[in-house]
Amino acid sequence: MGDTEKPLGLVETRSVRVCDEGLVLDCGRRLAGITVAYEQYGALNAARDNVILVCHALSGGAHAAGWHAGAIRPGWWDVLIGPGKAFDTNRYSVVCANVLGSCYGSTGPASNDPSTGRPFGSRFPVVTIRDMVRVQKAWLDGLGIPGLLAVAGGSMGGMQALQWAVSYPAAVRSVIALATTSRHSPQQIAFDEIARRAVEADPNWRGGDYYDEDPPRDGLAVARMIGHVTYLSDRGMQRKFGRRLRRDGPSYGLDPEFEVEHYLQHQGQTFVDRFDANALMYLTRALDYFDLEADGRSLADTFSATDAAFLLMSFSSDWLYPPCQLEAVATAATAAGRTVRYREIASEYGHDAFLLEHRAQEPVIREFLAGVAAGQSIVAA
Amino acid sequence: MGDTEKPLGLVETRSVRVCDEGLVLDCGRRLAGITVAYEQYGALNAARDNVILVCHALSGGAHAAGWHAGAIRPGWWDVLIGPGKAFDTNRYSVVCANVLGSCYGSTGPASNDPSTGRPFGSRFPVVTIRDMVRVQKAWLDGLGIPGLLAVAGGSMGGMQALQWAVSYPAAVRSVIALATTSRHSPQQIAFDEIARRAVEADPNWRGGDYYDEDPPRDGLAVARMIGHVTYLSDRGMQRKFGRRLRRDGPSYGLDPEFEVEHYLQHQGQTFVDRFDANALMYLTRALDYFDLEADGRSLADTFSATDAAFLLMSFSSDWLYPPCQLEAVATAATAAGRTVRYREIASEYGHDAFLLEHRAQEPVIREFLAGVAAGQSIVAA
Repeated sequence: MGDTEKPLGLVETRSVRVCDEGLVLDCGRRLAGITVAYEQYGALNAARDNVILVCHALSGGAHAAGWHAGAIRPGWWDVLIGPGKAFDTNRYSVVCANVLGSCYGSTGPASNDPSTGRPFGSRFPVVTIRDMVRVQKAWLDGLGIPGLLAVAGGSMGGMQALQWAVSYPAAVRSVIALATTSRHSPQQIAFDEIARRAVEADPNWRGGDYYDEDPPRDGLAVARMIGHVTYLSDRGMQRKFGRRLRRDGPSYGLDPEFEVEHYLQHQGQTFVDRFDANALMYLTRALDYFDLEADGRSLADTFSATDAAFLLMSFSSDWLYPPCQLEAVATAATAAGRTVRYREIASEYGHDAFLLEHRAQEPVIREFLAGVAAGQSIVAA
Repeated sequence: MGDTEKPLGLVETRSVRVCDEGLVLDCGRRLAGITVAYEQYGALNAARDNVILVCHALSGGAHAAGWHAGAIRPGWWDVLIGPGKAFDTNRYSVVCANVLGSCYGSTGPASNDPSTGRPFGSRFPVVTIRDMVRVQKAWLDGLGIPGLLAVAGGSMGGMQALQWAVSYPAAVRSVIALATTSRHSPQQIAFDEIARRAVEADPNWRGGDYYDEDPPRDGLAVARMIGHVTYLSDRGMQRKFGRRLRRDGPSYGLDPEFEVEHYLQHQGQTFVDRFDANALMYLTRALDYFDLEADGRSLADTFSATDAAFLLMSFSSDWLYPPCQLEAVATAATAAGRTVRYREIASEYGHDAFLLEHRAQEPVIREFLAGVAAGQSIVAA
């Protein structure tokens, strides 16, 4: 490993206040003094035109790469971000911020409401993907970053990337959107709604104002189990768990005994230790509202108002955000005259593939970014 | 409509006690004095060889066809059962029994435990698909029905149909199994497990002993919503709901406002009025244990010990029991020398298609049954 491929090592999350004058959200309410938690890897160049914004998914945060002191795993996209990696921090300055409405340092329902000095809870306004992007724009303006070489993300992060190109066409040279869609489908809304009902069915939910009491752990665990099963594929689960039991034979009881049951329970239990139920409620709502055709324009019309090159990647076994959704985005963006590269990557990892299939993604992202950075036109594959 | 196609009209559920001496279940426990609720449509012929057993799915019951007095809809498979229909009650005597472990008249967790005089609740033994079939055999023996022209069903009903051919090869001339599998996959187990955890997360669950108190309604409603979304297809939901809102525009709140959300909530709420939470717990467990390869034999070896003709039908958009599972059954039964007809029916109705696509099923079932009844060998399509 050469000196230029030294790993990122220890990184820290920083925090900044933006929109002190107040930001008017899609819901019409004004939110003032928004905190943004973010990380930055790789130096800004003199022209300040080497910045890549990476956007996280539902349960992610600003910690996208490198290590926090004492952590047992690196940031959520460390496989792709770092010196010599796809998002090469020797060339690019990669930034990532926790989204508005989350619970990892940026303003969200668990934050203190300045007007009461107590957590917002149910008084937190419903936010949208567009609102998240508005906050990111204010934050980058504050950092003196006028535009982005690329905005990249998977799942909810991919929605933010697409929204950036639509909201701020002059500021976005390229979009890398993975395992995502331009509008939440009724099935995607349905799974989110079931997760929300699972949280609300927990008596500890208390309408969202539970911060002085026990949080709705059981409901949140069920909600996470619902989410988690949609992130995996049938075939991947066959390979990982099959019908294996924890013990030698069936116990003939109702408690978990298949490996897959224990796995899901574990996912649910560990999630409640690290995530806020209100954040799940608000972020899934933001996903459900996401619809780039909501204003009545066709998707092609929407993309004709953008000025970015697009790299779109879906994953064959992702049934939560099936490839046909990003294919439709590719078709519309191409019809709008945009430069589009679309790839469906063969994978058994389901929706989680965008976090795991880094070997397949790496050369595609690297080449795409090099083309964008060189100002070349990106030729569709 | 000729006289021979007069509809079934009013029908009634009858009830009988079987296994007074006790039935030893797969779990090793003995259950004595089992009640079987059943219906019968069409007359038994003199040779008693025109009987078709129809097996219901998770939330079904003995009421498969015709009308109960005052009901607003007919039995669950009325589209296929009746005079002149696919299961033609002018020719065949069709019987259907509520399964062991359910809550529609046959013995289940809500039944009185004779040893205590109170509902079984958590003391009800875990039952399997094979146990359900054992009870059905005892019931048909009691009715003086020595064998079956056909055993037919979809989903959990299809599992029973396959199990009949394996458990009682001499008694089964043919099997019609729809939208089902020979073994529950880890993804299928996962959805069941999440439904069970949703019930258990409800404080009213009380470990299953809630019959003197309020039942776990909220948990059961969430469990049903999980089940229900797996019965639909993405495309079918697009067509039925799209992203339509109940009101003119978004409310920017967390309550349901998309049509699909209201629909799912309604499904959950109405289910708790008609179904017992323990029945859901026990029947999903029976599904999860179902595995025709559990004794270490290959599926082909399993089917080589059967003596039935098989009609297997899957549905293109059924992602809960995807066509590949019944294809594997068809392949194994063919390898075992059985006569097999396999059809994948194009449908947007998802798993529910076996209840809805009667026009596509009717000619196939009719022709298959005519061949079986005539003693002809059934030629694979």
